[in-house]
Amino acid sequence: MRALVVEGPGRFAVGDVPEPVPGRGEATVDVLMSGICGTDLQLVAGYMGFTGIPGHEFIGRVARVSSPHDHVLLGARVVGEINVGCDDCPRCMQGLGRHCSRRSVLGILNRSGAFSERITLPVSNLHAVPDVVPDEVAVFVEPLAAAFEILAQVVVAPAQRVLVLGDGRLGILAARALASAGAGVVLAGHHPEKLALCRGQGITALLAPEEMTSEQFDLVVETTGSPRGLDDAVARTRPRGTVIMKSTCVDPTSFDASRAVVNEIALVGSRCGAFAPAIAALREGKVKVDDLVTRTLPLDEAAEGMRRAAEPETLKVLLRVAR
Amino acid sequence: MRALVVEGPGRFAVGDVPEPVPGRGEATVDVLMSGICGTDLQLVAGYMGFTGIPGHEFIGRVARVSSPHDHVLLGARVVGEINVGCDDCPRCMQGLGRHCSRRSVLGILNRSGAFSERITLPVSNLHAVPDVVPDEVAVFVEPLAAAFEILAQVVVAPAQRVLVLGDGRLGILAARALASAGAGVVLAGHHPEKLALCRGQGITALLAPEEMTSEQFDLVVETTGSPRGLDDAVARTRPRGTVIMKSTCVDPTSFDASRAVVNEIALVGSRCGAFAPAIAALREGKVKVDDLVTRTLPLDEAAEGMRRAAEPETLKVLLRVAR
Repeated sequence: MRALVVEGPGRFAVGDVPEPVPGRGEATVDVLMSGICGTDLQLVAGYMGFTGIPGHEFIGRVARVSSPHDHVLLGARVVGEINVGCDDCPRCMQGLGRHCSRRSVLGILNRSGAFSERITLPVSNLHAVPDVVPDEVAVFVEPLAAAFEILAQVVVAPAQRVLVLGDGRLGILAARALASAGAGVVLAGHHPEKLALCRGQGITALLAPEEMTSEQFDLVVETTGSPRGLDDAVARTRPRGTVIMKSTCVDPTSFDASRAVVNEIALVGSRCGAFAPAIAALREGKVKVDDLVTRTLPLDEAAEGMRRAAEPETLKVLLRVAR
Repeated sequence: MRALVVEGPGRFAVGDVPEPVPGRGEATVDVLMSGICGTDLQLVAGYMGFTGIPGHEFIGRVARVSSPHDHVLLGARVVGEINVGCDDCPRCMQGLGRHCSRRSVLGILNRSGAFSERITLPVSNLHAVPDVVPDEVAVFVEPLAAAFEILAQVVVAPAQRVLVLGDGRLGILAARALASAGAGVVLAGHHPEKLALCRGQGITALLAPEEMTSEQFDLVVETTGSPRGLDDAVARTRPRGTVIMKSTCVDPTSFDASRAVVNEIALVGSRCGAFAPAIAALREGKVKVDDLVTRTLPLDEAAEGMRRAAEPETLKVLLRVAR
């Protein structure tokens, strides 16, 4: 089958690779469409020493299952949670398979990803997608789940003032998810055309730092992808407020920890989220995502897609794998 | 009156200074004894550009009050919360005077401290100390309150495994406060004689890193005072666990934020605490502190006391101001 293969930092191309072999309890899924994420760009740049097939945002169709019990799923349109725990350790027993120390992660760690014609995932990772949600919307379930994870980690009251730092894909999704929960959201970024996309949906979008006041916020979501973002986030958080940390960087982050101590600020690491709230929000049209697609390319042009995704003005690049 | 006066980084001496003038609602307190804290050492080294009279751990006796209503307090033995809010801003109205942006802080910010014969504080900051708690124990109320603050910020269940990094004054107090709440506490430090003090009180004291395993903890309390401490704390915290940040350093802190994001770890800044739980613990003998006093010197030898407090083998240096 065809897939985008990463050989080392900066070295990647589409080629022919062997079909993935499903493990016990796993389904084989024909990928319909996949999305390129900031993490993919970091992986191909050397984050975690990645080699292999990246891609963890996808919508697909179940092609094969290993248990007769799961035949009902054949042909279903599905998205899939990306962490696969060992199902045997204390963390997995506690339902924390996402943090299993022996986990594989689709397109990130020990599991070939969705920039390919087929993937395998445990049936228990799959979620059926309602027909009213088209492929180019469903492919946003995974990143939107990461945005909704914020609402699972902290209580966001309607009166609260929230600042989202970074007007990239994740920043915009986080701002929209938080606005859908009733928070007063300020989105701060450096790209006027991206900020313009977000105005008039319960979000105040401001060019940073020029248009920003000295207001301090109850909750600040750091999505800049920059090692300097955390210092900025802490400075803009009120005493006893919360910073959600979303950026994963190759370089260490340096910040004024004393400021966080004196102001008793909580910094909460936030990664993936449960899919159900994200699927519900997309089905009900509570969060708009289709305006974030900058370009859709066929899988064979995935390498070009990666280059496009890295351009500052790009929001989301999708890969069309099949129909 | 006599006081230790800091003129600039590294320049401090005991001399004669004017008496402090109490504001409205404030009491004048004759200091009986005060304690030298790590923050004092950082202040005289240049933290926050400090000049003036440091000292925020004290036990004293109320000498004067400004309202007839408060006459009942005259002669009372008291300790005092160190933050003084403006009593007029939204944060003060919410009971967050400790985080008032116009606050003064005893011996730290815009309020002369307790390495002196007399201080002033609002009557509402004072707490009477039971006679069964001697001066050299009561002077630990402020740092012990900072240790108990951890229990106000996170739920510590008896089955939880807690690691305290740093065997200094605050580390030991934090370990003892957490052990008194029933947690299984490991205290990790570099000083065998300090660690020996803590054994056999529900605390496992280990020389770091030689005696430590690769165990990851539910809660890690970082008290090392080192900019490298946070990275170590995050590495030793289980996924979805919590790091309590206690260290205030002059230098920026550098750490692997990606690790905290991927493992969804919460880093919680923690500063001062409410006095009542600390006074109760000392009255009931639940937390031992008197074995932490390395040396007691008269106020006139406060400069020598500061030098002693900075020595690695020292735990707590007290200043005897009056009887």
